[in-house]
Amino acid sequence: MQFTSEQRLGDGVLERAFTLGEIPGILWTPGSAPAPLILLGHPGGLHMMHPRLVARARQAAAEGFAAATIELPGSGDRPRSAAAEEARADLRRAVEAGGPVDDEIVDRLVLPLVEKAVPEWRAALDALLALPEIGGRVGYSGGVISIGVRLAVVEPRISAAVLFAGSFVPRAILEEARQVTIPLHVLLQWDDEGNDRQMALDLFDAFGSKEKTLHANMGGHTGVPQFAGEEANRFFARHLK
Amino acid sequence: MQFTSEQRLGDGVLERAFTLGEIPGILWTPGSAPAPLILLGHPGGLHMMHPRLVARARQAAAEGFAAATIELPGSGDRPRSAAAEEARADLRRAVEAGGPVDDEIVDRLVLPLVEKAVPEWRAALDALLALPEIGGRVGYSGGVISIGVRLAVVEPRISAAVLFAGSFVPRAILEEARQVTIPLHVLLQWDDEGNDRQMALDLFDAFGSKEKTLHANMGGHTGVPQFAGEEANRFFARHLK
Repeated sequence: MQFTSEQRLGDGVLERAFTLGEIPGILWTPGSAPAPLILLGHPGGLHMMHPRLVARARQAAAEGFAAATIELPGSGDRPRSAAAEEARADLRRAVEAGGPVDDEIVDRLVLPLVEKAVPEWRAALDALLALPEIGGRVGYSGGVISIGVRLAVVEPRISAAVLFAGSFVPRAILEEARQVTIPLHVLLQWDDEGNDRQMALDLFDAFGSKEKTLHANMGGHTGVPQFAGEEANRFFARHLK
Repeated sequence: MQFTSEQRLGDGVLERAFTLGEIPGILWTPGSAPAPLILLGHPGGLHMMHPRLVARARQAAAEGFAAATIELPGSGDRPRSAAAEEARADLRRAVEAGGPVDDEIVDRLVLPLVEKAVPEWRAALDALLALPEIGGRVGYSGGVISIGVRLAVVEPRISAAVLFAGSFVPRAILEEARQVTIPLHVLLQWDDEGNDRQMALDLFDAFGSKEKTLHANMGGHTGVPQFAGEEANRFFARHLK
């Protein structure tokens, strides 16, 4: 893990860009150390996502958490995958046609992404937990819910997760959800135009966790209200501190 | 409104029993006055519900709210209605038989209760708002969700509502829900054995409110977690202060 730049944000949060091999990432740390860590998931494209990631990281830092994220395979400045681009184009056509989206397209888009991304998040976790600024429990928060499900199943260092139910989920991941046992806080945008609400409810139902909470709010994909972010933060405060 | 007894609870909250004509009720006031008011709905039976109502009232008082409740028609010490008792028995038989519950039974049980209870809650509100201890906005919180829906539609003094999705809802009330426009915070116990989850989701979908939030948690009918009560309190703090 190589730090490539740093800047101090207004509220004392230190933002540092890093690379982990070929993978760009960002780490935010609060004044206090060692801090429990929240991994910030996102749909890909660190530059485009940066303003929203910074807002989430500052909210986390206000509760005493460090936060970190890495670029997804095939997104941002990372090399594109021809197969993934084709699957994404097929998905877009299927959504625009208004019909149901074929499971095969979802599998082709999401499963290889999960297969590649999850080991990268785990490698990032190895590097982050070796830093003196980071200590204590780890949470995962964010989008591409299928990555969150797989991480929750395979990575025992993740103690709790906030998941955004806002993307297509392969049937295989829905089955995998039954093996998740950590506390979960699931956010659903009720009228999300790019989202299959019934799939999100089925996924919530499938999770094996004894403590799981679903928070559904109005507004579209990017319209998660401020208070919903605060509630997610309190969920982490209950489980990571 | 006649106060019939009073006691000071450990945390400085004053609990006073009252009668409003034939109707028994309870008022809890915090130290500070005038306090915004939360009407505490419940499924009927003030004596049996008292411990849970006191807990909710104390949680409300800790945020600076007064709380009040009245007995439902046909419950507790109030005269029974033969028609309601028959409808309740029919509902119990239908639930025990495991089949779907006939709409006609739900209508026969719930609609007369709504017709009788809502004017009583409004009369209680008239009396409560005349007290110097009460002032500012009013919220409704609680069970028999159909009563909450009707109150939200007809009573303009109610500014926000926390509704427990945990009882059978007549089709007519589902239609009425489209006319609700105040901010709503809906609690759903995901695995509530006495509850129709799909009906609860349909009802949430039907509400006309621009701000509506659904919080689904694990556990049965009476297992609403402590943190869910705190989130509901913060919802009222956002909308009633």
